[in-house]
Amino acid sequence: MYELPLEVIQEARARISDYIRHTPLAPLPHLQNNVPPQLRLKLENLQVAGSFKSRGVFNTLLQLSDEAKKRGVIAASGGNHGLSLAYAAYRLNIPAVVYLPATAGADRAARISRWNARVIQHGRNWDDAHAKALEHAEQDGLVYVHAFDTEKTLAGQGTLGLELLDDVPDLDCVLIAIGGGGLISGMATAIRALKPDVRIIGVEPTGSPAMTRSLAAGQVISLPEVRTIADTLSPPTVSDSTLALTQRHVNEVVLVDDPSMIDAMRWLWLNVNQLVEPAGAAVIAALLSGTVDVSHYHHPVALICGGNAAAEPVWSDYEARANRGG
Amino acid sequence: MYELPLEVIQEARARISDYIRHTPLAPLPHLQNNVPPQLRLKLENLQVAGSFKSRGVFNTLLQLSDEAKKRGVIAASGGNHGLSLAYAAYRLNIPAVVYLPATAGADRAARISRWNARVIQHGRNWDDAHAKALEHAEQDGLVYVHAFDTEKTLAGQGTLGLELLDDVPDLDCVLIAIGGGGLISGMATAIRALKPDVRIIGVEPTGSPAMTRSLAAGQVISLPEVRTIADTLSPPTVSDSTLALTQRHVNEVVLVDDPSMIDAMRWLWLNVNQLVEPAGAAVIAALLSGTVDVSHYHHPVALICGGNAAAEPVWSDYEARANRGG
Repeated sequence: MYELPLEVIQEARARISDYIRHTPLAPLPHLQNNVPPQLRLKLENLQVAGSFKSRGVFNTLLQLSDEAKKRGVIAASGGNHGLSLAYAAYRLNIPAVVYLPATAGADRAARISRWNARVIQHGRNWDDAHAKALEHAEQDGLVYVHAFDTEKTLAGQGTLGLELLDDVPDLDCVLIAIGGGGLISGMATAIRALKPDVRIIGVEPTGSPAMTRSLAAGQVISLPEVRTIADTLSPPTVSDSTLALTQRHVNEVVLVDDPSMIDAMRWLWLNVNQLVEPAGAAVIAALLSGTVDVSHYHHPVALICGGNAAAEPVWSDYEARANRGG
Repeated sequence: MYELPLEVIQEARARISDYIRHTPLAPLPHLQNNVPPQLRLKLENLQVAGSFKSRGVFNTLLQLSDEAKKRGVIAASGGNHGLSLAYAAYRLNIPAVVYLPATAGADRAARISRWNARVIQHGRNWDDAHAKALEHAEQDGLVYVHAFDTEKTLAGQGTLGLELLDDVPDLDCVLIAIGGGGLISGMATAIRALKPDVRIIGVEPTGSPAMTRSLAAGQVISLPEVRTIADTLSPPTVSDSTLALTQRHVNEVVLVDDPSMIDAMRWLWLNVNQLVEPAGAAVIAALLSGTVDVSHYHHPVALICGGNAAAEPVWSDYEARANRGG
């Protein structure tokens, strides 16, 4: 049975602390009553590179040998992992290559390129990009950094559990989105070890229910197809390690559909002035749709895991109205 | 000569503290070197109702008589003042009417209506809406709440100066956007009283330079026309009080054009994952355009004053791609 020791997460926290940000915990303003007023939001979308992924990536890159750092790192990513890899590699002066599926939006490729990483778009989905990136890693002797399936990555994501317990010592319920399951596995391990009674709820898109299916089957199930706007929550499989930790530590996993995630994005914007990607709004979708009710908890937190939405239409719109006169 | 005593600002802070939010101060992540790494951002776009305006509005509404509260409040506003008025009135259970120019975006009207305020769109610009709202106030015996020209409002905005000095006791330079001048007047009064040597820099759109022109003329100048996407920075006149306080306490006022504000909006999004309106990005535009250089200050802060951008195109785009299948 896969184990992730608490000490490994604690060591990760010390290791990455100079590189990542303790993100703010926002109390909600007084709102009309569609969510319980005691809910607070952990704004991990304010993390460096815009998502929790930077935690796992820094924890991994900081443990590379000097020789490996010199050769460089490589990853396949629907977006946020690749962006965090590019950012961390930039900071640590390591060459980086990021494979994206050809379907990834231009804004994601541009964001990653800004940090000097080489971006290669390949294949129809994450699996294709992943296979090609592994081949590339082999050929050039680069270190492949998986998006969720290594202890270093899980421990890095787990630091967010420790940080959240510092923010909310009386935490009694937390909602966490699930893609490959790295975030919820790491966080749930840390939280369960220190505060066993917290209710931990996972949220997954109906269009890519890899964890839900795998939990039901009792083993990792590979989805034949994923269809959701939450591109950063849509790897077609979880991993043995994330399934094992989710089985052990997560109380329930619920599903949210695309329209409810868009509603939740709007809600976050109108109420908290945070524009986030669909993945970042998934936990709010679970509340607004009535799928999950946290009103009887005293200190519930919704983890806003990432913010890298496709905002380009906003600038285009303002540009059309700009005053370019003298 | 107009005076705003520090004690009045301190009293305002105590008065409004249960209703507004102490907003986060974000250190920048390590970035490529287009802004100095020591710059920090005061994210007042995370304030309730999305801007600093809530401070002045709560300070005003909390001092109304019970009789006045019962009759209700009214304002004219390009957006943020009206939104804050609607929100504060909702919280304090006061009826509210908000006049907007007919040119205001649909998203602004919708945001204000959400808090049960009555929205009336009238006239070509803020002056028209303001005149009509005054008439309405007179007829119905409502309290008119001006967007920047009263001591209660200035004192409320000044609380942000006190809060910023708590956040950054060694503050040596701050950049603040100017619309009617209420924010910079209140903040500069508070900061100057407690820490006289801070460099205070105002930033105004080239398309609505009401403060720049008034400073040059030594008296309030009314602009014949305003043309900028920064609609929340574009009242055609400042006031005697804001001009007097700006003359006394602000070191310099610089201008930024629309394209540079859009660049700055993009920059804030790509680097800090904050979508803000043009007004909120104006201070960053002053830095990125090279108009202001703060690299020789040790503790400079850029105040991100508001976040209510027109984000509707983002949702439309996601909606077009949503998976609505079962």
